[in-house]
Amino acid sequence: MGIRVRAVDPANVAMDDLNLSASAFESYDATPGVIGVDLDRLWDPVSLANKGDLVQLHLDTESRKLVVAVAGLKFQMACLDPATIRSEPTLPELELPASVTVDRDALRQGVKAADLVADHVGFRMTPDEEVFRIDAEGDTDSVDFRIDADDWEAVTLAEASSLFSLDYMKKIVRTVPAGTTVTIDFGTEFPAMLSYDIGDGDGSMIRMLAPRIET
Amino acid sequence: MGIRVRAVDPANVAMDDLNLSASAFESYDATPGVIGVDLDRLWDPVSLANKGDLVQLHLDTESRKLVVAVAGLKFQMACLDPATIRSEPTLPELELPASVTVDRDALRQGVKAADLVADHVGFRMTPDEEVFRIDAEGDTDSVDFRIDADDWEAVTLAEASSLFSLDYMKKIVRTVPAGTTVTIDFGTEFPAMLSYDIGDGDGSMIRMLAPRIET
Amino acid sequence: MGIRVRAVDPANVAMDDLNLSASAFESYDATPGVIGVDLDRLWDPVSLANKGDLVQLHLDTESRKLVVAVAGLKFQMACLDPATIRSEPTLPELELPASVTVDRDALRQGVKAADLVADHVGFRMTPDEEVFRIDAEGDTDSVDFRIDADDWEAVTLAEASSLFSLDYMKKIVRTVPAGTTVTIDFGTEFPAMLSYDIGDGDGSMIRMLAPRIET
Repeated sequence: MGIRVRAVDPANVAMDDLNLSASAFESYDATPGVIGVDLDRLWDPVSLANKGDLVQLHLDTESRKLVVAVAGLKFQMACLDPATIRSEPTLPELELPASVTVDRDALRQGVKAADLVADHVGFRMTPDEEVFRIDAEGDTDSVDFRIDADDWEAVTLAEASSLFSLDYMKKIVRTVPAGTTVTIDFGTEFPAMLSYDIGDGDGSMIRMLAPRIET
Repeated sequence: MGIRVRAVDPANVAMDDLNLSASAFESYDATPGVIGVDLDRLWDPVSLANKGDLVQLHLDTESRKLVVAVAGLKFQMACLDPATIRSEPTLPELELPASVTVDRDALRQGVKAADLVADHVGFRMTPDEEVFRIDAEGDTDSVDFRIDADDWEAVTLAEASSLFSLDYMKKIVRTVPAGTTVTIDFGTEFPAMLSYDIGDGDGSMIRMLAPRIET
Repeated sequence: MGIRVRAVDPANVAMDDLNLSASAFESYDATPGVIGVDLDRLWDPVSLANKGDLVQLHLDTESRKLVVAVAGLKFQMACLDPATIRSEPTLPELELPASVTVDRDALRQGVKAADLVADHVGFRMTPDEEVFRIDAEGDTDSVDFRIDADDWEAVTLAEASSLFSLDYMKKIVRTVPAGTTVTIDFGTEFPAMLSYDIGDGDGSMIRMLAPRIET
């Protein structure tokens, strides 16, 4: 019981997978079903809520409209027919050998630095060097950001090296809430999975990003 | 004795009427008269004042320039000939049956929500429903914001329903100072009058907005 | 021992001269030499440092690259050949009779006010009037900002009057750190020199700006 949201970008490069269990809500009363929602439209009324306001989602089964209620406000929005939404890709089972768990800020710092010199960023790990490296190579300048045992909360050391689009990675990292601990699973020329808890553990977020082929 | 400012927008849709009595000033020494001032130019030196700074307005009768003094700064600006300024429309006596007094923030919340779905906003009251409604109807989505006895400070219940341009309403609401209690007088397809005190009661502001005809 | 930076704008209107003695650094180990650096590129990694972070500059003599290290980050940037950088003009010895020492905020206030009416700003002093004036003359409006004994920290009264480009002056004043006391030396149709300490007195900054000829 709960809400599950899956969103894929048009180019199939990134996919978000959000799970919120019923316990994440003040009250939850729903039968299983699938609705299609325009995320930008949904954000509009939710953004009007003040800190501490409860937000109510209610599906009007007659009009097939989603009613979002915040304080005195009722916002009625048309749903999208789920059949018209491009279905998400089936994911192959991935075996991602390397894993590192860090604070969002460290990840952000590395990605921000990489963005200064290039438009792709490398995630690297070599088992003998006990370090997770975020690096980037520009035409004349280069960036090397090292996270080691002092900074990570957990690690599975393994040979791993993948390159990612900075445009995508920046957007992902920017929207991880402050104070969040993120686990990065990755391999060699494999997608990366960034996972973290939300809602005091009543929800989880997985953000996948396909690699770029290193030339 | 005091200062009165009247400003009308070029399309004659909105009019502001500000009265500041002499008691609103630290010192006041003037004979009656009318001057024309470019409001944007006047804002320039005033915006340089820090919180708590006194601002002095002085009309140099020789040069016909307005001198604005703030801290060590003297700003001399040319006045406009009042005869060249489009004169304000004469207002018909309006009988606006409905009235509700609310905090600016509630009004702002409703107008902001309406802006998400449409470009006009409705103010509605029906005497039997004890509620003041701000609503908006878009092509597929709609907003309904309700203010009731829990949220208003005073009310005169009456049948009233008018539609306004959101572009104008947003600008009006945005410039009402935080913490201000606003009285909204309105009727059915009649202008709305938003009034509030400024300067600890030594001044008052009335902001009128013409209705849009509901189709 | 230390670092000296000289930068001149392409039009030769303004020159900055920064001196940081070795004592300004946590540790300093260098032999004399000159390197060319793209200032915008250098700012990139430095801007990633948090308050309190140490920044390390290291010249890799083999690759001729400058390595900037901040926290876990290593940023490698190509240096410019100093021979290819336009050399700074030799400065004539200037005798600037007037001098006034003020808080940056006062200077900023005056320059900001001048910017409201004109695109050049006058610095004026007349010995009998005990005042330093920042003024500006627009087509219809004018600004006069007065700093006197109440506001300055030191003064050398002398006849002096020069006009400067506001575009340049704004950029200079905007980048003086808050809380800084600035000494302005100027004369009549002579450059102005704005000087102040940085790094708790272990460094000093001199910013020169050529005058505009008053018409």
